[in-house]
Amino acid sequence: MQSVEVDAERVIREITPVLDRSRHKGQAGNIAVIGGCREYTGAPYFAAISALKIGADLSHVFCTKDAAPVIKSYSSELIVHPVLEESYSVREEDKKNISSKVLAEVGKWLERFDCLVIGPGLGRDPFLLDCVSEIIRHARKSNIPIVIDGDGLFLVTNHLELVSGYALAVLTPNVNEYKRLVQKVLSSEVNNEDPVEQVLTLSKQIGGVTILRKGKSDLISDGDTVKSVSIYGSPRRCGGQGDILSGSVAVFLSWARQHIEAAGPDSYLSSKNPAVLGSIAGSAMMRKAASLAFSNKKRSTVTGDIIECLGKSLEDICPAGSCSL
Amino acid sequence: MQSVEVDAERVIREITPVLDRSRHKGQAGNIAVIGGCREYTGAPYFAAISALKIGADLSHVFCTKDAAPVIKSYSSELIVHPVLEESYSVREEDKKNISSKVLAEVGKWLERFDCLVIGPGLGRDPFLLDCVSEIIRHARKSNIPIVIDGDGLFLVTNHLELVSGYALAVLTPNVNEYKRLVQKVLSSEVNNEDPVEQVLTLSKQIGGVTILRKGKSDLISDGDTVKSVSIYGSPRRCGGQGDILSGSVAVFLSWARQHIEAAGPDSYLSSKNPAVLGSIAGSAMMRKAASLAFSNKKRSTVTGDIIECLGKSLEDICPAGSCSL
Repeated sequence: MQSVEVDAERVIREITPVLDRSRHKGQAGNIAVIGGCREYTGAPYFAAISALKIGADLSHVFCTKDAAPVIKSYSSELIVHPVLEESYSVREEDKKNISSKVLAEVGKWLERFDCLVIGPGLGRDPFLLDCVSEIIRHARKSNIPIVIDGDGLFLVTNHLELVSGYALAVLTPNVNEYKRLVQKVLSSEVNNEDPVEQVLTLSKQIGGVTILRKGKSDLISDGDTVKSVSIYGSPRRCGGQGDILSGSVAVFLSWARQHIEAAGPDSYLSSKNPAVLGSIAGSAMMRKAASLAFSNKKRSTVTGDIIECLGKSLEDICPAGSCSL
Repeated sequence: MQSVEVDAERVIREITPVLDRSRHKGQAGNIAVIGGCREYTGAPYFAAISALKIGADLSHVFCTKDAAPVIKSYSSELIVHPVLEESYSVREEDKKNISSKVLAEVGKWLERFDCLVIGPGLGRDPFLLDCVSEIIRHARKSNIPIVIDGDGLFLVTNHLELVSGYALAVLTPNVNEYKRLVQKVLSSEVNNEDPVEQVLTLSKQIGGVTILRKGKSDLISDGDTVKSVSIYGSPRRCGGQGDILSGSVAVFLSWARQHIEAAGPDSYLSSKNPAVLGSIAGSAMMRKAASLAFSNKKRSTVTGDIIECLGKSLEDICPAGSCSL
């Protein structure tokens, strides 16, 4: 099977909402990142700030108590909730109680979010991952889309039932995460001869969850079709780019969903998968910003430089000036 | 009834004090923001730094112990007092004592302030809100103007007696906050057919408190008149813009009050309401800065970008070069 290089810029133009002064706060997207622990604080920040720079109105982070002051200090633009707990701070006999408390804290916010990003800087603490499993179950019940990356993929690869069959889930594995996923789901090794067929089979096997396989070309499949995005891109591989991607996909997925819903059931759009459209748009946006940053900063490009290029990248493709003022 | 689009730039020019080298620190305004808790730290920062960027000499934040180091880390320009307490850190039997302590801490500063901004990132902890109610009572006794936004509006909507009849109070509701206020005070729904009449009635009903209803056009009423401000503005609705507005209104209200007092009782100015003038000026200033930031950053505009445009916006309208050096 052949993948089809998709016109990603056209997708971005189609799903990005027109800006209009009569809109109010929240309508362009309210995103939450679940991640950030004692060890990792950069990743959830990158994902959450990228969502704002793409154009979401509000961006939240749910992280551990230790991580919160640090993530807050990176940017006053984010709303950071210090609610998650790791094993080292919890006594065995308190686990059940604390787990319920964490879920209640996250739960009271959940319905307001247009998309969750699960995994950036999450860590692998078993108690924390158990709580996150519950959050995924809750989100799924409420039909809230989820983008899963990093340690979220570690969790989900070991508990496929969490996402299996959920059409509003996107997994964004890199080379190693993809390898583990293929081993687990297909009991085989990565096939670089026919990657298109394999990503299609993989997605089908997990019940049509959208997979965005990151690479030289990004491959995107929901088990029905496979699209590739090869435009732009950068040879620089500094850590954190995956976090930008996950935050961007979250925003575009929300926009695609709104766009499809607004078009109604009789529109040709009704057959489109918002998770695939969001993945295509997020992939292209990340690749364009990375390319722009690399042309300025070359080998010294870091993730923050790429984030600074998101605004111009989107503006080049889809000028806000064309919005009704 | 028709609202009258007001010449907001003329109001700004009229009330902005002439800069003069013989003046000393504090004369251009000493503002305090009451807000900032474990969850929210960006909002009080935005309000307080905006007050400085408009031209206040000193800007304070009174927040919880958890929030203080984070808010301090955003800017070395602010004076941040870690004095508020939330229920989770207070034992039942200590509440009365701690409440008195909080009030004493805030109270010893209160008389120095030209205006308080109550609400940005305040949260909704009942114990904390009880303390803030006392702060409002104290401010009112001392005739200190107050601008109320965010969770402060949540508090005041449920305890209208806190502000009812206080001419130096400004409420700055957004769409949702306005809806709750109308439901509570007028026992009716928001009337979009005749918004001017409704905001007038609403203000009258709360005893002439000034209401700044934010929207595509901002509507401002003190129960006597209704003014609208429609100039400039931006279609971007990122969270935090309301905080810039509240900090800006606080400074302009202080300046308007000084200006009216200096003119004396025989001046035509003596009949003017400083809360209305401050609201008009703050609204226009925010809208101009947002418009300027949007023209640079488009969809990726965040609140910090707008704050960076406050200085140029004010300078465009009312050049400091024309002040007597």
